[in-house]
Amino acid sequence: MKRFFSVDDVANLDVLLQEAIHIKKNPLQKSELGKGKTLGLVFLNSSLRTRLSTQKAAQNLGLNTIILNANQEAWTWEFEDGAIMNGGTVEHIKDAAQVLSQYCDIIGIRCFAGLTNKEEDTSEKVFSLFEKYASVPIISLESATLHPLQSLADCITIEEQKPINKKPKVVLTWAPHIKSIPHAVGNSFAQWMNKTDCEFVITHPKGYELDPKFTQNATIEYNQEVALQDADFVYIKNWSSFEKYGKILETEEDWMLTNEKLKVTNNAKIMHCLPVRRNVEVSDEVLDSPNSLIYQQANNRTYAAQIVLQKILESNENA
Amino acid sequence: MKRFFSVDDVANLDVLLQEAIHIKKNPLQKSELGKGKTLGLVFLNSSLRTRLSTQKAAQNLGLNTIILNANQEAWTWEFEDGAIMNGGTVEHIKDAAQVLSQYCDIIGIRCFAGLTNKEEDTSEKVFSLFEKYASVPIISLESATLHPLQSLADCITIEEQKPINKKPKVVLTWAPHIKSIPHAVGNSFAQWMNKTDCEFVITHPKGYELDPKFTQNATIEYNQEVALQDADFVYIKNWSSFEKYGKILETEEDWMLTNEKLKVTNNAKIMHCLPVRRNVEVSDEVLDSPNSLIYQQANNRTYAAQIVLQKILESNENA
Amino acid sequence: MKRFFSVDDVANLDVLLQEAIHIKKNPLQKSELGKGKTLGLVFLNSSLRTRLSTQKAAQNLGLNTIILNANQEAWTWEFEDGAIMNGGTVEHIKDAAQVLSQYCDIIGIRCFAGLTNKEEDTSEKVFSLFEKYASVPIISLESATLHPLQSLADCITIEEQKPINKKPKVVLTWAPHIKSIPHAVGNSFAQWMNKTDCEFVITHPKGYELDPKFTQNATIEYNQEVALQDADFVYIKNWSSFEKYGKILETEEDWMLTNEKLKVTNNAKIMHCLPVRRNVEVSDEVLDSPNSLIYQQANNRTYAAQIVLQKILESNENA
Repeated sequence: MKRFFSVDDVANLDVLLQEAIHIKKNPLQKSELGKGKTLGLVFLNSSLRTRLSTQKAAQNLGLNTIILNANQEAWTWEFEDGAIMNGGTVEHIKDAAQVLSQYCDIIGIRCFAGLTNKEEDTSEKVFSLFEKYASVPIISLESATLHPLQSLADCITIEEQKPINKKPKVVLTWAPHIKSIPHAVGNSFAQWMNKTDCEFVITHPKGYELDPKFTQNATIEYNQEVALQDADFVYIKNWSSFEKYGKILETEEDWMLTNEKLKVTNNAKIMHCLPVRRNVEVSDEVLDSPNSLIYQQANNRTYAAQIVLQKILESNENA
Repeated sequence: MKRFFSVDDVANLDVLLQEAIHIKKNPLQKSELGKGKTLGLVFLNSSLRTRLSTQKAAQNLGLNTIILNANQEAWTWEFEDGAIMNGGTVEHIKDAAQVLSQYCDIIGIRCFAGLTNKEEDTSEKVFSLFEKYASVPIISLESATLHPLQSLADCITIEEQKPINKKPKVVLTWAPHIKSIPHAVGNSFAQWMNKTDCEFVITHPKGYELDPKFTQNATIEYNQEVALQDADFVYIKNWSSFEKYGKILETEEDWMLTNEKLKVTNNAKIMHCLPVRRNVEVSDEVLDSPNSLIYQQANNRTYAAQIVLQKILESNENA
Repeated sequence: MKRFFSVDDVANLDVLLQEAIHIKKNPLQKSELGKGKTLGLVFLNSSLRTRLSTQKAAQNLGLNTIILNANQEAWTWEFEDGAIMNGGTVEHIKDAAQVLSQYCDIIGIRCFAGLTNKEEDTSEKVFSLFEKYASVPIISLESATLHPLQSLADCITIEEQKPINKKPKVVLTWAPHIKSIPHAVGNSFAQWMNKTDCEFVITHPKGYELDPKFTQNATIEYNQEVALQDADFVYIKNWSSFEKYGKILETEEDWMLTNEKLKVTNNAKIMHCLPVRRNVEVSDEVLDSPNSLIYQQANNRTYAAQIVLQKILESNENA
């Protein structure tokens, strides 16, 4: 693996999942692989799970980690090529990326969608520029449109929990929220599910269609109850409108997931990437039920990051 | 040791102090004990000594450290059970604690008293909730009512410096300050002193009585001069009123500790947990005198943290 | 080496440069030297290159690193001796320095010029006080008047790139900027160039003279075109007025360095410490040309830091 931005960077997803599950059984088996090498983690946005799980994964591989909270600790970045930098930005992303590449063997970067400029976000302007100018492999810690380490952890979790001898039905259901939320987790989950052997259904109110580039031929069902029928896994997530870019349409509080709604499922397992707005997106009773996989998902973030770092380190060794 | 919140978590304080002093002589003697394990340090408040000494202690044990400045780097926490999270909080402490437990083998958390809600603070709401939901051992890096790593370091310092063949007289004296300060250091010092073999006196203006749960049968003397008589150790610390919770009563500038006041002591050693408001709480001449132990106390923070981490790691090994 | 504040702390610059270039070839050759020891990095200001390159250097030496973003994570410092601390400052630098010395074997500190009080800045008040009270070796991560790790990296870069059998001509040219910028990089580059075997010329508009303490007998040429004639290296940097301390004089946009201006040079190599205001200080075409050494300079920051840390560690070992 030379970089990790989306499922398209995975040569064979089934094999990758088995390798991640293998790592989970003995996380320290390659604790010398990263020796003398450095992982840089650059955060342009807040992070809890990604920040910690990626550090943990690096430690398991003997890889040093350097963290940069870019806006707080360093300098505000300029993104425009050819800009006359006489304003508020202090360092061009071109220079930041090339400089960081001097100190790091792999760089992870988190750069959320701004949700104000659809073209900039859908073109992955920040991630693309950073990767363009960097000279080392780049890992997405969530970009404007995708969150691949989350999706990989989600796939590992489903792989561990899926029913035997049955293609699982996986439902991604939109959930209410009070803020404009990026599409990255939803897009990314759809993209990865489309690569696995499952019946995949997305349900949301009209107007909340995700970018078809990622949902592709997934079933879109506007009736939540119909969608949930016989589901084995229900993944709950809010996102803002893609068409009316970044907007919250009329409040759809009745889309909050409850135990009552889950009755039509096949005793479905519950998934959420966290952080979750409890009793807004989904009720406490659902999140805290024995069927909830939310902490297993969080736990699997470590092994998702670790298999990706391992693949990149091994790929570099062979280069 | 399964957790570290107060002196009640210490099986035998005398033995613990001797073990800490032994570690100080050879801090790297167990430098493989923490190998492959991770300590998470979560800060809801500022920290210098605790932040650095606990990292140093972890390094001495070969333990990896992950730091989270929770409010700056991650998400604002919700503390109410069952809350409908449609306001400013983004992640429930329940989820944060369970998620952090996925990545860390031990978690330290700093959560100061808010000083606005006496019941919340005295019930240790934040620490208790965090510990309740976490699935790994929790260490207090200072909670609403106690600062046990500081008190352990203070006990180590007194053990090193105490007069031979004499039960030392230890005086905790309130000091003036310009801000509302939590009671944690005062409470905690009282709690630990009550477990050691010394004559322990607390002195403060009327109205600044600490919670009797922690002072217990310690002597309370409202006359500072009387209290200081023949003291071997004088510990200086400000705190706000406990009765009029979090309030500063009338200014008592004449409670500032000076060399003049120390004349009645037995050439007392001077202690302060730092940071100190110089020439407000205590004069420069006192802090900078040869009798001042303030930097030894700071130094002993490392060995306090190290013996606690060691005990927890060894306890887990045997589990 | 006992400390690192300026070129005066270097016994033999030529030897140091060769040693740094040797380290660059095998950065892990002394990866056990720092084992069990701790480097503290204290930032009173933003940092990207220094933050990362010094961590990388420490990792290469097996040295643990503890970072303190002093104002964000800890307490605001008081600098006045004898101050009655009843205002906004919470901890005296005296105490901070002595406490940090309890946990660290070497401390690096970044403390920019405030540019409001010339005497405080030129006297290096913050660095000097910190070093005075610390009990371990102190490294400057850029102080009020100097940036020695940058200058050492610059010297390494020139040493690697200089023409054979010819004393190089090195020109430091002032560049336009929209903000008041400290003099540290300019002063420091002048100070180090004055110790190397080169023809050194400084060019800037009248009124931007640097402190003669650092420029010494360097040639000052107010005509940029004349200065650039036959230059082998052109170092671009803005600074505010030293005489009218911290002020920006009238805008001199025509001092921006362009390819056109470089025509009179000896196909000069281009240097800048970064971050750079592109198309304000210097044009994109210059920075992105094959002659640009800006990323090599950034890369050499690691080896500059590493040789300094190595020298201090070895010096301590022999003590």
